[in-house]
Amino acid sequence: MRRRIIVLGSTGSIGKNCLDVVRANKNLFKVVGLSAQSNDGELAAQIAEFKPEKVALSNEPSWRRLRSAAPRRVGVLAGDSGPVELVETLKADVVVAAITGGAGLASVFAAVKKGIRVAIANKEPLVMAGGMIMSAAKKHGSTIAPIDSEHSAIWQCLHKERPDRVARLILTASGGPFLGMTKRQLAGVTPAQALRHPRWKMGRKITVDSSTMMNKGLEVIEARWLFDVPAKKIEVVVHPQSIVHSMVEFVDSSVMAQLGLPDMRVPIAYALSAPDRWPSRLRRLSVAEMGRLDFMPPDLKRFPCLSLAYEAVEKGGAAPIRLNAANEVAVEAFLGGRIGYADIPRVIAKTLGRNGPLKIGGLEGIMEADAAARETARGCL
Amino acid sequence: MRRRIIVLGSTGSIGKNCLDVVRANKNLFKVVGLSAQSNDGELAAQIAEFKPEKVALSNEPSWRRLRSAAPRRVGVLAGDSGPVELVETLKADVVVAAITGGAGLASVFAAVKKGIRVAIANKEPLVMAGGMIMSAAKKHGSTIAPIDSEHSAIWQCLHKERPDRVARLILTASGGPFLGMTKRQLAGVTPAQALRHPRWKMGRKITVDSSTMMNKGLEVIEARWLFDVPAKKIEVVVHPQSIVHSMVEFVDSSVMAQLGLPDMRVPIAYALSAPDRWPSRLRRLSVAEMGRLDFMPPDLKRFPCLSLAYEAVEKGGAAPIRLNAANEVAVEAFLGGRIGYADIPRVIAKTLGRNGPLKIGGLEGIMEADAAARETARGCL
Repeated sequence: MRRRIIVLGSTGSIGKNCLDVVRANKNLFKVVGLSAQSNDGELAAQIAEFKPEKVALSNEPSWRRLRSAAPRRVGVLAGDSGPVELVETLKADVVVAAITGGAGLASVFAAVKKGIRVAIANKEPLVMAGGMIMSAAKKHGSTIAPIDSEHSAIWQCLHKERPDRVARLILTASGGPFLGMTKRQLAGVTPAQALRHPRWKMGRKITVDSSTMMNKGLEVIEARWLFDVPAKKIEVVVHPQSIVHSMVEFVDSSVMAQLGLPDMRVPIAYALSAPDRWPSRLRRLSVAEMGRLDFMPPDLKRFPCLSLAYEAVEKGGAAPIRLNAANEVAVEAFLGGRIGYADIPRVIAKTLGRNGPLKIGGLEGIMEADAAARETARGCL
Repeated sequence: MRRRIIVLGSTGSIGKNCLDVVRANKNLFKVVGLSAQSNDGELAAQIAEFKPEKVALSNEPSWRRLRSAAPRRVGVLAGDSGPVELVETLKADVVVAAITGGAGLASVFAAVKKGIRVAIANKEPLVMAGGMIMSAAKKHGSTIAPIDSEHSAIWQCLHKERPDRVARLILTASGGPFLGMTKRQLAGVTPAQALRHPRWKMGRKITVDSSTMMNKGLEVIEARWLFDVPAKKIEVVVHPQSIVHSMVEFVDSSVMAQLGLPDMRVPIAYALSAPDRWPSRLRRLSVAEMGRLDFMPPDLKRFPCLSLAYEAVEKGGAAPIRLNAANEVAVEAFLGGRIGYADIPRVIAKTLGRNGPLKIGGLEGIMEADAAARETARGCL
């Protein structure tokens, strides 16, 4: 029997790569649900190819166009609640959560509550509500399978090892395009410069996050929840070639690592197949030809966003929510030309320092803390 | 209940490291048997510390000395059959096989037949009789746990993975002290030069093998049997820093690797603890400080011993026995100043090319093929 899969955020980069994995393993999957923000053209093509039972489109004009274009047997849901409705009403074995930003939070919770596997690509749910998600997953017997290449690498290294044998998680970081810049040079970085990433082709916000190393900071917070390891046992190592995706040090002083070419389809496939692995025709890493790999400690003085993330996860409660919200506000302001590059950590630090709720309760409490932090951050611009 | 352990070759480098691991895990082990070639002084000290039930010493004068010095409750066995007798007469849960050369073969077989774990450090049993050992292990339910750092790394990478998901084993090689030498320079290498290894402190013969890369060739043969993977799926990659101990590529194009400082106690402990890992106080690899790691393909023209090993394992039957025997004869002759460095592969190639038994049957057939090949090799000097 084929596994029934729902892909939330199916027209984005992760969503499309995920459907590519499904395409290569047609005998294993049946796509039952798809969701997108506004790209009705792409979604219509995906409907024609994968024949899902239901789809969801948040943007209303897009939804109107798709509703008249789609075959009548396909349910087309509207509004921001579409993804949650898909998850709650469709029978599924796995949900791929690839909706960008905090908008993905509710649908992740809905999937976790069904006790099925959730292959998770968006950072925000784990950064904002990692503790809640993981305890709900435990309660309902749901597996949270990471799609991020770093977390996938750690998950692979932890494969059937005893949790109490883990000494340290080691997240690798490309260091971004500004690795070699001085603090002074960094202050003058323009949006155009920040949007060029040396290894991965990604969205605008995450590319800037990668350049400030906030991306790695958010990953530290994700790892803390995904693998139930305190932040002080999570280390970041700069590795410009991005071949070693991450590592785990064990108590016997062995270090396990996962390596590969930068292709998101590898961690996506593993999130779906684990603990098994499926044969793929993707390009293989030639270890003999990989030449030189470098590793060095990150410079926290030049990349203060990483320290801010450690600070937030240590504080706990709403602090990671406030960190994430302030970062989103600051990056948006930077891309809009309203603040300078060096102002990004400044706005985040200010927001973290201001009063705000530290305790969070339930999904609504999280959304409130998020909104409050955005408000504070805007005041700090 | 403590595991009952026999250490064969307990006064050698691996044996002493093994007892160091036992010392650090006294609550887990009871040493019941020890064996050595001739070092009665060291063995007497080990008896005093670990209080085994029986010990064995091959060399007769050493045996006489020990027999009068050892406490009366300890059985002291004599002769080359001592190790086999230890294994056959003592109740044990694990045997560490660290007897150098072909002499270790019979005791490995004896241990395998008991259906217990055999932590194997010496290459020869697997090179000479890998197929027989592995099928006997399967039949009797014995686990063959590799101690070599490379094979331990691969074993760790394979941890609970499906065998049919393995695409390639990747053995790393330091490349030895002559990595950068030209073919002409290699021809003039002296024994003193060949005995300086850049990373590991080892015995004389294995240090020369490391410099010719025959060591890696023998490891390819071992890996072929240990992991039931054909030689054409086993790749050697030169990695001068010897931090990545080896890797496995899977069919999903993920590569798993094991890293660590060069300390034999790590793979020894894993051979005893696997699939668990025990906490150790050994120095940890600092990934952030490890700096630069290099990887490159081996140069088979300058290091023909590696090609010869692949040739032998492809041929199968007695060919690996002949390769190993010829190499031992040639290295001994080189260390004795009777042949030059470039003659080592020449003697081996000649021996492999000469007529000799290809089929082998049983332990005696193996020993006969070994003796015949030594004879041939001596004729080729």
